[in-house]
Amino acid sequence: MADRDREQHTTVDFDADNEDAREQLRADLIDAVQRGDRASAQIFSNRIVGEDATDLLDGLNEQQLALFFTILGEDELGDLIAELDPRDAARILSRMSNAQVADLLEAIDPDDATDIVEEIEPDAQEAIFVEMEPAEASEIRTLLAYPSDSAGGIMTPAFVSVSPELRADQAVVALRRLAEDAETVNYVYVTDADDKLLGVLSLHNLVLTRPETLVRDLMIRDIVSVPVTADQEDAARLLTDRNLLAVPVVDAEQRLLGIITADDVADVLEQEATEDFERLGGSAPLDEPYMRASPFLLARKRVGWLLALFLAEAYTGTVLRHYQDETAKVLALSFFIPLLIGTGGNVGSQVVTTIIRAMAVGEVRFRDVFKIVWKEARTAMMLGAAMAAAAFVRAWTLGVSLDIGLTVSVTVTCIVIWAAVIGSVLPLLLRQMRVDPAVVSAPFISTLVDGTGLVIYFTVARIILGL
Amino acid sequence: MADRDREQHTTVDFDADNEDAREQLRADLIDAVQRGDRASAQIFSNRIVGEDATDLLDGLNEQQLALFFTILGEDELGDLIAELDPRDAARILSRMSNAQVADLLEAIDPDDATDIVEEIEPDAQEAIFVEMEPAEASEIRTLLAYPSDSAGGIMTPAFVSVSPELRADQAVVALRRLAEDAETVNYVYVTDADDKLLGVLSLHNLVLTRPETLVRDLMIRDIVSVPVTADQEDAARLLTDRNLLAVPVVDAEQRLLGIITADDVADVLEQEATEDFERLGGSAPLDEPYMRASPFLLARKRVGWLLALFLAEAYTGTVLRHYQDETAKVLALSFFIPLLIGTGGNVGSQVVTTIIRAMAVGEVRFRDVFKIVWKEARTAMMLGAAMAAAAFVRAWTLGVSLDIGLTVSVTVTCIVIWAAVIGSVLPLLLRQMRVDPAVVSAPFISTLVDGTGLVIYFTVARIILGL
Repeated sequence: MADRDREQHTTVDFDADNEDAREQLRADLIDAVQRGDRASAQIFSNRIVGEDATDLLDGLNEQQLALFFTILGEDELGDLIAELDPRDAARILSRMSNAQVADLLEAIDPDDATDIVEEIEPDAQEAIFVEMEPAEASEIRTLLAYPSDSAGGIMTPAFVSVSPELRADQAVVALRRLAEDAETVNYVYVTDADDKLLGVLSLHNLVLTRPETLVRDLMIRDIVSVPVTADQEDAARLLTDRNLLAVPVVDAEQRLLGIITADDVADVLEQEATEDFERLGGSAPLDEPYMRASPFLLARKRVGWLLALFLAEAYTGTVLRHYQDETAKVLALSFFIPLLIGTGGNVGSQVVTTIIRAMAVGEVRFRDVFKIVWKEARTAMMLGAAMAAAAFVRAWTLGVSLDIGLTVSVTVTCIVIWAAVIGSVLPLLLRQMRVDPAVVSAPFISTLVDGTGLVIYFTVARIILGL
Repeated sequence: MADRDREQHTTVDFDADNEDAREQLRADLIDAVQRGDRASAQIFSNRIVGEDATDLLDGLNEQQLALFFTILGEDELGDLIAELDPRDAARILSRMSNAQVADLLEAIDPDDATDIVEEIEPDAQEAIFVEMEPAEASEIRTLLAYPSDSAGGIMTPAFVSVSPELRADQAVVALRRLAEDAETVNYVYVTDADDKLLGVLSLHNLVLTRPETLVRDLMIRDIVSVPVTADQEDAARLLTDRNLLAVPVVDAEQRLLGIITADDVADVLEQEATEDFERLGGSAPLDEPYMRASPFLLARKRVGWLLALFLAEAYTGTVLRHYQDETAKVLALSFFIPLLIGTGGNVGSQVVTTIIRAMAVGEVRFRDVFKIVWKEARTAMMLGAAMAAAAFVRAWTLGVSLDIGLTVSVTVTCIVIWAAVIGSVLPLLLRQMRVDPAVVSAPFISTLVDGTGLVIYFTVARIILGL
């Protein structure tokens, strides 16, 4: 490690899950900035990842932020800020001068810069745009106009395009000029005078060919694009399904507006997965990082489902009142109520989670419904047998009579199969009816199984115990 | 659309969620291949995305597959096969000749090809390697040696690197030679004679500078890399946090072994999210696409947790037997048991889902535990008040006495707060104790709340009803 080249090279050590070491790193960076040691500051800033970057920048006052800007420079500080959640970034930028913010936004890729500007108050936005280069300000203004969950909302205008009439050597010269501002040079797009997308070239095709070949004859015409209005998740999935590093975005007239690059796709898919998680847990999506959500917001997102589930679950009271004579006669029956409906809820939760996720990643579709129900029913029969044995043992340890043990065993098998069928059919059916299947949360299935499970229980009890 | 250029350009229409249209497309492709119309076949094949590609290729017999290979060519068919789940791809390749499989694997990026080869029997692997170019076969052999969930398992050796002693113009010449086999040319890595990573260059730096400048003086030395043994999820998160299109992978001696490109990151994060979903629903991760999992596999992944939860839930029977005198005296108390413990389970599920997800995406850490519990406790107090009102109304509609209504209302508030505290503390505590917090599934919290909730219920009942 004595070699100077080696010293500056950072291998991120993920095993250093050590709060102290990370705090030391933040302290080292602040120290280097205050000493004005740019080289060390840049090395340290490069090692800071994720939430640590937020913590660091949040902890700086206005003077310190200004000093960071001066010492690190807009490119390095821009890299650090582009990593943050856009809301955090906007909050930190609000403590800097408009001129500095303008320089930083120019240094950040336009699509990421737009995400940050979206979180800034409209008045403050204008004050920043005035300080920016007109071309870069106008790029961000254009991107702001697209809904943030559409292909237009995640695309970047920083692509490279050339005319089909250029010769290969002219195109290479043009690219040298364009490449600095581009987010990726893997794909070179070919557009006509009206910006209509005609084809695509790979850079190596361009440099390997004879210099006088026309771009028109080199380009691949058979190219996949997405409409600017497409849902961001569909566009993201296209990139991952195809293993593409970028995909062009076009308007209705096939004009090339921007490209979506693979580095933005992971963010989109993470965001969609988080929404699915929250719905599956039985609350509305937060649309906000957890640590920044107020208790009031959390309560508001949860109370609707909680009350709806309460109303649905209230049915269990009616069922129990209906069967109160049976319960009074054989009080031991009541001992098993939480166990039986709890097991039904657990199986329902297992099944519905698996099905909802398989639907989200596109593995499962409505036409598979019979295959799925049959698969889940067979699975549930195996699980039901195991649970019946466990239930019989439990009844014996609670010291109840043999026929109550039998009642509980038969009931648990029926409930397991019933929960599996409901949990697999319902999400598919709702999707087919164009209702968002994510309303079928794990708590929803548990609730549904609770009331119906009790009816099964007392029906079995009446038959076996002759009540 | 009369223009010939335009005709070949495909804008993917995500709104065409139309089974018939997609089936027609598959039929058109098969028809074009059988007519030997290569141009149309390539256009159609480009429009087929996701599961449709699997369906299409699965439906072909050996003769048809061989014809597809001949008409589409290894590059187009390779693109189609690289999109598939590696297991599907391996199954389809098993119906082709070893020579054809070798050509296809050579046309696919080495990291994706390795994922497919991993799913092929070792004997069949050898037969295919023999048919491949030695260099490409050896690349795949090397990649096979890394665990598939490590940085080594997802990296590709298809990067471009140059020596620091080259002049800029010499480096450009070298790149022309290297670029064709590379997965990305956005970053040009600089390595010494021992392959040690010294720095990185952007392509535009290289082409914009004076031709005689040395690479050594142009390169950025301050570069982030990941160890080959790093967890794939950590490596993937580094790319998304930094908005990088690629990151270099090095061994313990800082030798450059490969790069991880952004197109693979989304797959990794999706796979990890799916595992989190399955664990949260209360089953072990399937490690297999749902439609291919047998009922036996599903049962095996679920039965462990189901029995464990059953054992934990069995405690409710003991509690109910303990309080059987109270129940016998006031049978109406039993009407509310499923409602109360169900509500506790729902709140627990809402909280634990949110916390586990926030931990997974790195938003929440142990040192935040007091902030989180305080936030959840305040949220639960608001929710508890709403649920108390609902419970009181429900008791009234069931026609029970006022003091039982009061008992139920007080209990539901206590249970909501208790469930929220347990659901927020437990995952954080387990992570701190180095236990995978994903064992705290929604069913786990529900079960925990069931037994303890009953104790709360009967304690409140004893006090208010004076039992």
